[in-house]
Amino acid sequence: MGLLGSGSWATALAKILLQNADEINWYFRFKDTVKQFIQGGHNPGYLSSVNFETDRINFYTDVEELIENSDTIILITPSPYVRNLLSKIKKANTKGKFFLNAIKGIVPEDNVLISDYLHDNLKIPVDYIGAIGGPCHAEEVAMDRLSYLTIACSDKQKAEQLKNCVASKNIRCSINTDVVGVEYASVLKNVYAIASGICSGMKYGDNFQAVLISNAVREMKDFVDMVQKEEREIADSVYLGDLLVTAYSRFSRNRTFGSMIGKGYSVKQAQLEMEMVAEGYYGAKCVHEVSKRFKANLPIMEAVYKILYEKVSPKEAIADLTKQFI
Amino acid sequence: MGLLGSGSWATALAKILLQNADEINWYFRFKDTVKQFIQGGHNPGYLSSVNFETDRINFYTDVEELIENSDTIILITPSPYVRNLLSKIKKANTKGKFFLNAIKGIVPEDNVLISDYLHDNLKIPVDYIGAIGGPCHAEEVAMDRLSYLTIACSDKQKAEQLKNCVASKNIRCSINTDVVGVEYASVLKNVYAIASGICSGMKYGDNFQAVLISNAVREMKDFVDMVQKEEREIADSVYLGDLLVTAYSRFSRNRTFGSMIGKGYSVKQAQLEMEMVAEGYYGAKCVHEVSKRFKANLPIMEAVYKILYEKVSPKEAIADLTKQFI
Repeated sequence: MGLLGSGSWATALAKILLQNADEINWYFRFKDTVKQFIQGGHNPGYLSSVNFETDRINFYTDVEELIENSDTIILITPSPYVRNLLSKIKKANTKGKFFLNAIKGIVPEDNVLISDYLHDNLKIPVDYIGAIGGPCHAEEVAMDRLSYLTIACSDKQKAEQLKNCVASKNIRCSINTDVVGVEYASVLKNVYAIASGICSGMKYGDNFQAVLISNAVREMKDFVDMVQKEEREIADSVYLGDLLVTAYSRFSRNRTFGSMIGKGYSVKQAQLEMEMVAEGYYGAKCVHEVSKRFKANLPIMEAVYKILYEKVSPKEAIADLTKQFI
Repeated sequence: MGLLGSGSWATALAKILLQNADEINWYFRFKDTVKQFIQGGHNPGYLSSVNFETDRINFYTDVEELIENSDTIILITPSPYVRNLLSKIKKANTKGKFFLNAIKGIVPEDNVLISDYLHDNLKIPVDYIGAIGGPCHAEEVAMDRLSYLTIACSDKQKAEQLKNCVASKNIRCSINTDVVGVEYASVLKNVYAIASGICSGMKYGDNFQAVLISNAVREMKDFVDMVQKEEREIADSVYLGDLLVTAYSRFSRNRTFGSMIGKGYSVKQAQLEMEMVAEGYYGAKCVHEVSKRFKANLPIMEAVYKILYEKVSPKEAIADLTKQFI
């Protein structure tokens, strides 16, 4: 099992995997980070409260090498680094390797899902591609708080195997076959969390937040149903739950980012103030492009897009939204 | 238009109605409260920040009289007082009167919905019965924060008329025909908010809360679909939204009540500490009885019921729930 990514979510997932596996492979970009990791016994950059037995981690600074030595590869980098990562995978021998996508984003410029990219560009067979999602703030995994994840794969047997790698005392795991739905939900919820933050920053209250989220769930469902017809229960925790935890939690970077914009910060100011990437910023741009391709109507996503990329004022964009809500 | 009830929600709705109506009829149990209201210009007991032009309110201390002088009667008392109120309505001439239920509860002992009681016991025709719901904390209505309500009635024209009485600058209003669904959602959300509070009091985190709410929405949908088959979108704000605002908001009495129990208070202690009624306490008992009648399975509701009425420890009841969640 190999992890391609080293942020908070990667660190949380490493902790989760090591509750079942004897050892994991883990990629870091810089040798220096690995050195610090081994010295300190924790990831120097993220979730530093989580201590690791470093002799159970095989560190790699070469993507190709990690892939060569892993049967399952987990993609778990922040979305701005996705293209760079995928270009490195391209060079590796991916035959017989299973790819599990844990990136809450879309391939920029191409504006396709990670799973589509893996299949179309890297020729990974569909049943060797999965996605993992669910309401799972890394910070709470670090604190050993009970959390739920879902693994999606068209091959249910492989999903079941992966489930057994993830499930433990503090982690419950479900499976389904809806890779596309899980991936889009992961992207959209970040955009909606920004919307939620914007409204909160503008002093809309709890009543309105509830209306916003209800409308966001329906927007998510309509869009995903349009992109890929599938029997899906949108109130499952991997869709609705993930949206809730992102839109309501104080741990949510996207909500915080939105909140600053709602309070009057410019997009640039808000980005400078935030130390971590708000994934929904990139997500909004990608989904905006994707929705054009599908001729889909996503009013909340579009409102966020207009605020972030077209300098439309939050006041105007949200007022417009409020008229469409039920 | 006459209001039967004088708590926070009644006060908020009075404010809402007076944005469109020249005057309203409003019932109070005690003449003394009316006197204080007129003297102070606000409801002495609830939402005292909301000032009223008292010459636009016709005060009543007699239910029969209020009914006689109102074409539409809004039932809006806390659920423990429901039986008392209904017994008074019984004596009045209800012919040609429209009853709008804003009570977030079930008739105790009978364990039937208010709408069913009105129809079965008081012989009010179905198209003269409606329900109003939605994510609408009274406190935020007082603060003029944008809120959304839904009016349900089998007679769409009457629902539309009532909508026009409610909708204003700060209040958006939708209609549907799902009286039963709106009533059950109003009751169940309070029970789920207690569950949410219990888990929060027990230090379950945001990740788990999102899972709890996702499972609660599905439980609500399955139950309501079972009781009355109807085309309903459970993610509409009147169902999901109302659950969200109750389960997540700091204004929620039910959540606070649950939280105290999760922290180790006994049910009695928690009730003594709270000055206001946590409706979900009564709701849990009623729905427990109703679910037996329908042979329905509501694990979250049952867990709350067992904690509140059967002295099962929160630890045991919630641990049991966590195994059933997705």
